[in-house]
Amino acid sequence: MSTDFLRGLSAFPLTPLRDEELDDQAAARIMIRLRDAGVDSITVLGSTGSGPYLSRDERLRALEIGTRHAGEVPVIAGVAALRTRDAVRNARDAAAAGARAVLLAPLQYQALSDDEVYGLFADVAEGSELPIVLYDNPGTTRFTFSDELLARIGEIPAVAAVKVPPLPSTRAEKERRLAELRGMLPAGTIVGLSGDASAADGLLAGADAWYSVIAGTLPEAAIRIARAAFAGDEVAAREADARMGGLWEANAAYGSLRVVAAVAEELGLAGPNSLPRPVRGLEGEAKQRVLAWLRSHSGEATA
Amino acid sequence: MSTDFLRGLSAFPLTPLRDEELDDQAAARIMIRLRDAGVDSITVLGSTGSGPYLSRDERLRALEIGTRHAGEVPVIAGVAALRTRDAVRNARDAAAAGARAVLLAPLQYQALSDDEVYGLFADVAEGSELPIVLYDNPGTTRFTFSDELLARIGEIPAVAAVKVPPLPSTRAEKERRLAELRGMLPAGTIVGLSGDASAADGLLAGADAWYSVIAGTLPEAAIRIARAAFAGDEVAAREADARMGGLWEANAAYGSLRVVAAVAEELGLAGPNSLPRPVRGLEGEAKQRVLAWLRSHSGEATA
Repeated sequence: MSTDFLRGLSAFPLTPLRDEELDDQAAARIMIRLRDAGVDSITVLGSTGSGPYLSRDERLRALEIGTRHAGEVPVIAGVAALRTRDAVRNARDAAAAGARAVLLAPLQYQALSDDEVYGLFADVAEGSELPIVLYDNPGTTRFTFSDELLARIGEIPAVAAVKVPPLPSTRAEKERRLAELRGMLPAGTIVGLSGDASAADGLLAGADAWYSVIAGTLPEAAIRIARAAFAGDEVAAREADARMGGLWEANAAYGSLRVVAAVAEELGLAGPNSLPRPVRGLEGEAKQRVLAWLRSHSGEATA
Repeated sequence: MSTDFLRGLSAFPLTPLRDEELDDQAAARIMIRLRDAGVDSITVLGSTGSGPYLSRDERLRALEIGTRHAGEVPVIAGVAALRTRDAVRNARDAAAAGARAVLLAPLQYQALSDDEVYGLFADVAEGSELPIVLYDNPGTTRFTFSDELLARIGEIPAVAAVKVPPLPSTRAEKERRLAELRGMLPAGTIVGLSGDASAADGLLAGADAWYSVIAGTLPEAAIRIARAAFAGDEVAAREADARMGGLWEANAAYGSLRVVAAVAEELGLAGPNSLPRPVRGLEGEAKQRVLAWLRSHSGEATA
C-alpha cells in the first residue's frame, strides 16, 4: 500500500468546542474549508485537534465528521493516549472511521524509558492495520527521542513517516540533519516537519512533508508557502513565509494552539472559548496582537 | 470541617492490573493490608495508583474497593486528568464513593500557564465539595510551581494541604523551606512531603505529613520511620530509614512505581505485569536488585 499521501502539506485542524462540548457544525465547516483549499492531507485529533483531551465519543464524532467532509483528501488521525490500550483502541476506531493513517506520540505521565516507548509503537503497530506517523513532539510529550530509538522504531514496518521537530538553523545543517535522518531510517520513510515558523526553510532543504498547524486554520497561506518551497522557488517561498512572520512570533510567545484558536474564533470558524480547559484562549494584549496581525493580513485568511 | 486527617502518614497503594484489567481481589488485599497496618490515611489513584491511566469505570471500581475496605481509615482520591472537565468529574465520583479529600496535580499536554493551572484548581474547587491536596509533582507533570502560584492557589479555601517535592538537603535548609512555605500559605494549610528517600529528614525538620509510595506496599516499614520522626526520635527514625537505603537507591534508578510493583508482585500482593502499558515492570538486573534487597530485608515486608 502506498503511503505517498503522507507527503506534502498536511493540515492540522482544531477540534472546536462550545462550552466544553464538541461543536459539530464548526468542525464540519473547518473540514470543508481545508478540503476546498486543496491541502494534501488532513490530520485530525493531533495536538492542534486536542486529541489527548477528548473522550472516546468525542474522538469518534470528530473522526466521523472529518472523514465525511474530507472528500478525496486523506485523513490521518492522532491516536496518542497515556495508556497503550487506549492508543490501540483509538487506532482501531480511526481505521473503522475511514482514516488512512495514524499519528502517534509517546504521551507520558510516568517518565517512559526507550524500551517502553518502543513497546508502545510495537503494540499499536500490532493492534492496527494503518500506517503510523511517528510524532516526535518534545514540547508536549516532554519525551526526547534519541537517534538510536528513532532508528529502532523506524524498523517497525508500519512506521511510514516521522514528524520531527524543527531542523537546526542553517541550510547546511538542515540538509545534514535530513541526510542523517534518512540514513538511519529505512528507505522510503517519509520525513515531515513540525514548526510552522521554520517549515519554508525545512522544505527548501528537502523535507518530504509539512505537518502544519496553520494549514488547519489558514490553509491558503500554508499552501502558498508549501507549493513554492516544494517547487524549489526560494524567493516565492520566503516571501509567502515572511507575510506570516507576525503569527510565527505569536506562536513562539503563546503556543500555536492558542494562536490558531484566536484566529479561528475571529474568523467565525469556531465559537468563543473553543479550547478544552484547563487550556484557555488568548486574552488581553496577546489576543489583540494576534487580531491586529490578522486584520493587516486579511489576504492570508482567504480560503 | 477538620482536615486533620490529611496529617501523618498517607499510604499510596498500587492499583494492580492483570492483563490490563483491574485486579479487584488484589486491590482489596492491598487495602486491607494498609488498614490493618494502621496508616493515617490511604490515597488511592495517585501516581502510584496509576490514576491518570485508568478509565472512569476502572477509577470507580478502585475507589469503591478502597472505601469499602479502608474501614475507619480516611481515603483520599487522586483526580488528576488532562482535562478540567474530567478532573471535576473524578472529584465528584470520589465524593460519591466516600473519599474524604482529593489529590490534584496539574497534568499537562499543552504546556500550561500559571493562570491556566490556577483555573484548574479553582474549577475543581468549585465543582466539588471535598478538600483538595495540591500535588506538586514536577517529575510526572513536568509543571513547575512558582512560590507565587502556590500562594495564589493556597488562597482557594478548599485547598487544605500541599504535597511538595523533596525539601533541600541540609536540616537548616529544610526548616527554612518549611517556614517559607508556611509563611506563604494560609495558616493551617498542611505541608506534606513526597520522596520516600528524604521523608525521615523532612519529617524531623517539621513537615506535617508524608505522602508515601512505599507505605502503600510496605506499610510497616514506613510506619516505623514516620512514628519515630513525628515523635522527634532522630536515632530511631534514621535507623529505620537506613534499613530502606537499598530501596531508595532503586527508586532513584528505576522510578518508585516500578520498584513497588516489583515488590508487590514478589510478595503476592499483585499478579505479574501489574502496571498499565506503556509502563513496564522491572526485568533482568534491575528486578534482581530489588528482589535481593527484599530477601535480605524480609522484616520490612511484614504487615
